[in-house]
Amino acid sequence: MKLVMAVVQDKDSNRLSDELIKADFRATKLASTGGFLKAGNTTFLIGTENEKIEELLEIIKDNCKSREQLVAPISPMGGNADSYVPYPVEVQVGGATVFVLPVEQFEQF
Amino acid sequence: MKLVMAVVQDKDSNRLSDELIKADFRATKLASTGGFLKAGNTTFLIGTENEKIEELLEIIKDNCKSREQLVAPISPMGGNADSYVPYPVEVQVGGATVFVLPVEQFEQF
Amino acid sequence: MKLVMAVVQDKDSNRLSDELIKADFRATKLASTGGFLKAGNTTFLIGTENEKIEELLEIIKDNCKSREQLVAPISPMGGNADSYVPYPVEVQVGGATVFVLPVEQFEQF
Ligand code: NI
Ligand code: NI
Ligand code: NI
Repeated sequence: MKLVMAVVQDKDSNRLSDELIKADFRATKLASTGGFLKAGNTTFLIGTENEKIEELLEIIKDNCKSREQLVAPISPMGGNADSYVPYPVEVQVGGATVFVLPVEQFEQF
Repeated sequence: MKLVMAVVQDKDSNRLSDELIKADFRATKLASTGGFLKAGNTTFLIGTENEKIEELLEIIKDNCKSREQLVAPISPMGGNADSYVPYPVEVQVGGATVFVLPVEQFEQF
Repeated sequence: MKLVMAVVQDKDSNRLSDELIKADFRATKLASTGGFLKAGNTTFLIGTENEKIEELLEIIKDNCKSREQLVAPISPMGGNADSYVPYPVEVQVGGATVFVLPVEQFEQF
């Protein structure tokens, strides 16, 4: 038995929840802020048998890994037109920080 | 020294807090959602000496274990009378998912 | 690799965050309540290499340790003047409860 603690960006949190349910993993979500990742984030607690760790890490990676995204320009709307960038820009989104912890005893009541 | 992480339903959370204080356990509560349990839940962090683990698990079990509860019928009040059930129904409430984690070092400053 | 879980008072939380960033530690903060400490508190999750544990514990201790603070008297303002204390009083503030957990696997995606 392992306890996986995964800190992921809020924007990936719902998709990760859905994929975990489909794959029969049970997760608890804790609201968390700052730190490992720049934007708002969610900390998942997921208990799993040892032999399913690789499958679980694969699901987290597939749904949360750091990647570049094109962001459409936002029209200045009365703001400073000097800082207006008239073409899409690439920003880094996503990313997951994952700790696999040993569990000495697991109980469900 | 162990760190016990227990996910319990919100409805059992206050009673568990009270019983832990009575038994001299110190707990921190984290707001958590979804996952292991269907309704809103709370994640307890409880540090304890090895020899008190059984006592602690007993308190969690006694206050949070999954059980059936009779729910009184709710009058339809303008809702769809077709779905109105005029007798009490049994629903599953409670339940706790508990991880006991080894602690390598414990400090209080 | 270790995962440090530190429960600290809210009033020390921002200063601890700043000092952790300066020292190149990455922390995630979880909103937490009650228990180990009397006032509102924050739970920090901090991943670190084994050789930096002592440095990390030193930072937590320096910024959060339990200490006495003089609190200026608050004028009764229409309250019960009998309970008014016309001189500063010492109260206990701060404090940190810290668990160092072993990590079996650490991944960043
Ligand atoms: Ni894949
Ligand atoms: Ni009992
Ligand atoms: Ni010092």
